Amino acid sequence: MKYLGSALVAAVCLSWAVQPGQSYPLDYYFETKLDHVAASQDNRTFMMRYVVEDKFYNDPVNVNKSRPILFYAGNEGDIYSFYNNSGFMTKTLAEQFGALIVFAEHRYFGQSFPFDRSVAFTAPYNTYLTVENTLEDYIQLLKTVKMTWGAEDKAVIAFGGSYGGMLAAWIRMRYPAEIQGALAASAPLVYFQGAKTAASGDFSEIVTADFNNTYEDGRCAKGIKEGFTYLMDLKTRDADWAELGEVFSVCEPFKSADDIQNLYYYLGNGLNYMAMTDYPYPSSFLQPMPAWPITEACKAFADVAPQEPEPKNGSLGALSEREKTVLTALKSLSDVYFNYTNATECTNYNDTEASGSLDAEGWNVLACNQLAMPIDFGSADSMFITELFNETQYAEDCFTKYGLNPYYSWALDQFGGADFQKDFYDYSNIIFSNGELDPWRAGGVYKFVQFDLPFYVIRGGAHHLDLREPMPEDKETNVGWVRDQETQLIEQWINEYQSRVAAEKITFVQ
Amino acid sequence: MKYLGSALVAAVCLSWAVQPGQSYPLDYYFETKLDHVAASQDNRTFMMRYVVEDKFYNDPVNVNKSRPILFYAGNEGDIYSFYNNSGFMTKTLAEQFGALIVFAEHRYFGQSFPFDRSVAFTAPYNTYLTVENTLEDYIQLLKTVKMTWGAEDKAVIAFGGSYGGMLAAWIRMRYPAEIQGALAASAPLVYFQGAKTAASGDFSEIVTADFNNTYEDGRCAKGIKEGFTYLMDLKTRDADWAELGEVFSVCEPFKSADDIQNLYYYLGNGLNYMAMTDYPYPSSFLQPMPAWPITEACKAFADVAPQEPEPKNGSLGALSEREKTVLTALKSLSDVYFNYTNATECTNYNDTEASGSLDAEGWNVLACNQLAMPIDFGSADSMFITELFNETQYAEDCFTKYGLNPYYSWALDQFGGADFQKDFYDYSNIIFSNGELDPWRAGGVYKFVQFDLPFYVIRGGAHHLDLREPMPEDKETNVGWVRDQETQLIEQWINEYQSRVAAEKITFVQ
Repeated sequence: MKYLGSALVAAVCLSWAVQPGQSYPLDYYFETKLDHVAASQDNRTFMMRYVVEDKFYNDPVNVNKSRPILFYAGNEGDIYSFYNNSGFMTKTLAEQFGALIVFAEHRYFGQSFPFDRSVAFTAPYNTYLTVENTLEDYIQLLKTVKMTWGAEDKAVIAFGGSYGGMLAAWIRMRYPAEIQGALAASAPLVYFQGAKTAASGDFSEIVTADFNNTYEDGRCAKGIKEGFTYLMDLKTRDADWAELGEVFSVCEPFKSADDIQNLYYYLGNGLNYMAMTDYPYPSSFLQPMPAWPITEACKAFADVAPQEPEPKNGSLGALSEREKTVLTALKSLSDVYFNYTNATECTNYNDTEASGSLDAEGWNVLACNQLAMPIDFGSADSMFITELFNETQYAEDCFTKYGLNPYYSWALDQFGGADFQKDFYDYSNIIFSNGELDPWRAGGVYKFVQFDLPFYVIRGGAHHLDLREPMPEDKETNVGWVRDQETQLIEQWINEYQSRVAAEKITFVQ
Repeated sequence: MKYLGSALVAAVCLSWAVQPGQSYPLDYYFETKLDHVAASQDNRTFMMRYVVEDKFYNDPVNVNKSRPILFYAGNEGDIYSFYNNSGFMTKTLAEQFGALIVFAEHRYFGQSFPFDRSVAFTAPYNTYLTVENTLEDYIQLLKTVKMTWGAEDKAVIAFGGSYGGMLAAWIRMRYPAEIQGALAASAPLVYFQGAKTAASGDFSEIVTADFNNTYEDGRCAKGIKEGFTYLMDLKTRDADWAELGEVFSVCEPFKSADDIQNLYYYLGNGLNYMAMTDYPYPSSFLQPMPAWPITEACKAFADVAPQEPEPKNGSLGALSEREKTVLTALKSLSDVYFNYTNATECTNYNDTEASGSLDAEGWNVLACNQLAMPIDFGSADSMFITELFNETQYAEDCFTKYGLNPYYSWALDQFGGADFQKDFYDYSNIIFSNGELDPWRAGGVYKFVQFDLPFYVIRGGAHHLDLREPMPEDKETNVGWVRDQETQLIEQWINEYQSRVAAEKITFVQ
């Protein structure tokens, strides 16, 4: 089960904790069908949560603005998490366009459960957690919202980050009549089996490169790799576990080689999340972190010059000096992720999911069904221990835990992407943005397809930085320029749609 | 049940009997999943039939032609029926382009049954008969065909007539990566609840107009309407049923008012089918018919000048002179459809489905689920008896017979079309063709959307005349010009795709 846990957590995309004391827009509930795709023969329904901010839309001073609907296609978490971290939509664009802001909560997350949480993720209750159902929830919701807010003739632009970015792209691809454009930020749309652009090992190589670039001699990534090598060696050296436990201030003493392996997964996930959220200003993901957390964390290796690992022979109740130095630096480095505010008393290495407020179970169900991503770790250019994606093992684990069989080619079968430069040609009005520092870029769309499918790679940007509220520190990246381009494109799509609607009223009246 | 039968048979689109002695291309079977859309958790499969003609594709003289795949999206019938009546594809275009011709048989029709026919149309076995599953069957089949025939880089153009035309348009809309263009011939894509262009009564008005236009004074349609009025009156005149039975040479004597109503449905369906197949040369649908069958049939009213109906008062064991004249003419007129070759000995008025070799059951399942079309009969401008679509009754009948609830908005929810000029704007490379004489034009796309979605209304054309093999008699219509336009557009789509594939190989190599 550990392998499954580890592989999937790496695939849990970004979410954030709700910030207390913030004043929220109103939330609402919408009745939606449990199963849209079975051609309506199952008439059960449930209540789905959504959030609407209409202050700009309703403000009389905006009456001459285009007043579109800016729609966030909610992904795997509480909808307010996304609302609170999408200031580019909720503030910048909403004000500029006089927009109606709508955030839809994904079924089986947050407050939008069709079944009690105690059973929702188990078979057969988990079979309604599908992308088709989610997209159809959103389309039906938009119809209701348009009626309620008198926005029937308004353009709808979809937004989303990470998996939400995939949903934003897919909802535009599938329902172009309802969605006039999409910003798919940091969306690994083609990180699926059979896609020629998505080398499955690139994820871990990008994480490695992010750490490698902090010193000219690459001592940070090299030191991490060295530390990981020692951990593997220590799996069989039980006499050294007590000292290792001291170095990492573990909550529970190590009792088996599996415990050491779990420590490795725990640390590895921390590094992956650091790479995803390597923002130019302090931010808070599962834990609060400083600006440029990787740079900050790598200071732990400032005085540790790189060298080849020196494994000890045998287990003698003591780490070697080099081991102790490197592992201590690794512990300090990981504390920037796990314990920046010194609130954590000990290392709970068995929490390999390390997902805190994120609902990893829901994502795991998706990843065991339509969104199985075969990600390899630990190529020659990577600092991770080699662990290739094992399709047989993964399928077995999915079946045991969720009664599900992974459908590896689902996304490519549905939307294309085995060769996205060829397959995506006939789609339009989708912006693909990716961050240079973001490991998910490995599965993103970052090459020219055609002019109606613009793409950007944000220099110095981490995971969907562009969706966040503009900040002064953004000037250390080129996200400001990217947001300007995105704004112009979105405005153009809105205007084109409004012109068509207006022209039709004159020319094509029945 | 009769109401259901009647409404649905009007919706059974065009098919044809296989002509004996014809030499066929090879047919094949393909293993496909029973349920594609349940995210693969049901792993049952069945064998789907398809037909391939590769003589032009494999002919060395065609090596420098574009050699695309021309794919027929099979609809509700045996696949050879469509193969044998699509000469424009199988002969004209196949030769011109050196094309690989592929005809896919729709699940639950012909030889492509996932369950034994004795249960296939009953719940729960009928729940796999959906449009999504059918489209996915076709996409998976195309992958297999491309590999088998070495056609991985070839453009695919989808074709279909009537419901098959809907599938051709939808497969291009949903899978633009796999399908480079579509010819949707006589496809009532927007004949669904909520579509503003599809006035539900237009179907019967077009049928009426086809009959009305045969004489300057409209005596044919007026006479038919008069005859239908007498039939309604005769429902309560049981003493006159024997004589009425003689006029129509019925197989079984009338025993109830329902029998008279069934005679009306039987005749009405014959007239609807005549309008659909009013071709300029002899053809064979359920029955062989002459060229321009409506003109031929209306000769029965040559000497029957129009007048107001004169209903008799009471039932006296005899029809009035006028009744006898009009009903006798109506019988002669209907014989052009039901008995042109004098092979039928008596009128089997209880066969209100009148569907012969067509598999009406399969269509009924679709029409009770995703493809429920609310069609009204008998407006003021129509020759039919008024029978408005009754949603409640229809739903009850569907549930009783098939355990299904009609999903009236399915097609518009999935692909748009409530206002197709607005909703279809972001699709491309689909030709919508409709016949001027064809009642299904009422639900078709026949207005300008944008230049990449060309539309044609074929002057003097009936139901998807353009798909048929070119004939000398076509010169009585403008179908020749329409086919020329279609050929040029399809050639352009193929060339554009091949250029992209070639350019990508040079420019974007990994």
